[in-house]
Amino acid sequence: MKLSRLGEDRLLAELLPSLGRDADLVAGAGDDCAVVRSPRGKNLLLLKCDCVVEGIHFARATDAARVGWKAMMRPLSDFAAVSGLPRFALVTLIISPKRTAAWVKKLYRGLTRAASQFNVVIVGGETSSTRGATAISVAVAGSVEPQRWISRAGGKAGDDLFVTGQLGGSIRGHHLRFRPRIEEARWLTANFRVHAMMDLSDGLGADLPRLARASGLGFQIAKETLPRRPGASLTNAISDGEDFELLFAVSPRDRVELERRWRKKFPRLRLTRIGRLDRKSKIKNQKLRSGYIHFK
Amino acid sequence: MKLSRLGEDRLLAELLPSLGRDADLVAGAGDDCAVVRSPRGKNLLLLKCDCVVEGIHFARATDAARVGWKAMMRPLSDFAAVSGLPRFALVTLIISPKRTAAWVKKLYRGLTRAASQFNVVIVGGETSSTRGATAISVAVAGSVEPQRWISRAGGKAGDDLFVTGQLGGSIRGHHLRFRPRIEEARWLTANFRVHAMMDLSDGLGADLPRLARASGLGFQIAKETLPRRPGASLTNAISDGEDFELLFAVSPRDRVELERRWRKKFPRLRLTRIGRLDRKSKIKNQKLRSGYIHFK
Repeated sequence: MKLSRLGEDRLLAELLPSLGRDADLVAGAGDDCAVVRSPRGKNLLLLKCDCVVEGIHFARATDAARVGWKAMMRPLSDFAAVSGLPRFALVTLIISPKRTAAWVKKLYRGLTRAASQFNVVIVGGETSSTRGATAISVAVAGSVEPQRWISRAGGKAGDDLFVTGQLGGSIRGHHLRFRPRIEEARWLTANFRVHAMMDLSDGLGADLPRLARASGLGFQIAKETLPRRPGASLTNAISDGEDFELLFAVSPRDRVELERRWRKKFPRLRLTRIGRLDRKSKIKNQKLRSGYIHFK
Repeated sequence: MKLSRLGEDRLLAELLPSLGRDADLVAGAGDDCAVVRSPRGKNLLLLKCDCVVEGIHFARATDAARVGWKAMMRPLSDFAAVSGLPRFALVTLIISPKRTAAWVKKLYRGLTRAASQFNVVIVGGETSSTRGATAISVAVAGSVEPQRWISRAGGKAGDDLFVTGQLGGSIRGHHLRFRPRIEEARWLTANFRVHAMMDLSDGLGADLPRLARASGLGFQIAKETLPRRPGASLTNAISDGEDFELLFAVSPRDRVELERRWRKKFPRLRLTRIGRLDRKSKIKNQKLRSGYIHFK
């Protein structure tokens, strides 16, 4: 079957059983970051790679510094998703010999500028030529305290669901300028019991069901509460990718305190309660349709 | 300037100063693996990524399992280069939607089979579509004891230079089937004082000058001693890439003992003394010409 018909989730589901298991592996393929016990270390080691491809994640004419920024920030957003701290990055650059050295230098300016926002150091990389589209893959290593690592799987029935920022319409510029919610995630796990968390990269309609499924639960969403970026329709807010905002679940007992302290700590970033996790039986009628979910 | 004219070494030289420095960074971009102090850990953390690209490192029709094997073994060869032990791998797959799921499964069979040879676990990955050539980037994390980490930079004037295996003509099949010299490197550093080491990926003619330069030295080679793969010319042995053999420098005092014990330990793998490191002044007439070096 052609990949175009199979889709990423099903491909992943078919591949996962073949991937190795290991006593040191806490969470592997399928969660936002791979989490491994590091020998003799107190903290968990986090590993994540991601890539941007010309014609898919950026246009041929996109400013190279923006491309570098995005290439670095995408995997860093996965560190936010698990409340981790990124530390070291490797860059694989697959590039046409027709691109100029000036373009590559600009790309690296974007990469290093993004990295320096979060104390990340580019420690190595590899370059290969290609006859096809330019692609940049960034692998990042970092760490998280075991008690502050948040997976997608810990959600409880009745948990409130929150998202940071606004959703939809990222293609109009946000996807090249976004700032991963690492500080926000670290603050959350320092001050509240976050049950489950992820970053929104494929659109709420595709990502929320993943979090719910990982927690063995369903969900209910109040569509009208979804925070929409200016100009974004409800469909945009549900179906567009690359929001790179946090989606997380906390007990409703924490709601008031969380909302109060959030406003004080991050006055310029919205926090919106969009619904709640629920017993699975209640959401039978919610189906995924090519990355878009029909909400009740 | 177009990248095709600039070349990888010069591009790297221009980019290196812009990359970050860090107190925890022992060796960064420019050596075979990035080496960082891991917090509270006794061992050094090693990080390396590498990639294979369709049309460059494999042909469109190459068996997918072979492509997977090569994609995994390339970065593992860099662990051999520093006497490190690889442990966890991340796979970035950039692929045309026209490829089949069967192709991807075969690719993963090659990746996992290669990984399992060295106790490496694939812990995560990312998939993106592309309109261009398929590319697979593999990032690997591992470790090495501080006293057994070998860089390219420790060579001493008068050191013997050795290579494992045979050189040249890798394109006729070796590049899809090679086995990184991890066990051999680990045995070397357990039993001898290796001063400098690297793996041969761009051809001896390009790689040996890098090791010599990193050690602040020159070298002398006896061309007729170069171990050639059957059918490989002397030019092939010097200029062809993807040998993935070890090149290393040890004191001539260790020569006899090393050769004797090597034959006993690895009876099926050649070890050849090809020359020695030398004071820089003696090799003024050895110039790099597009990845090919004119030996004396």
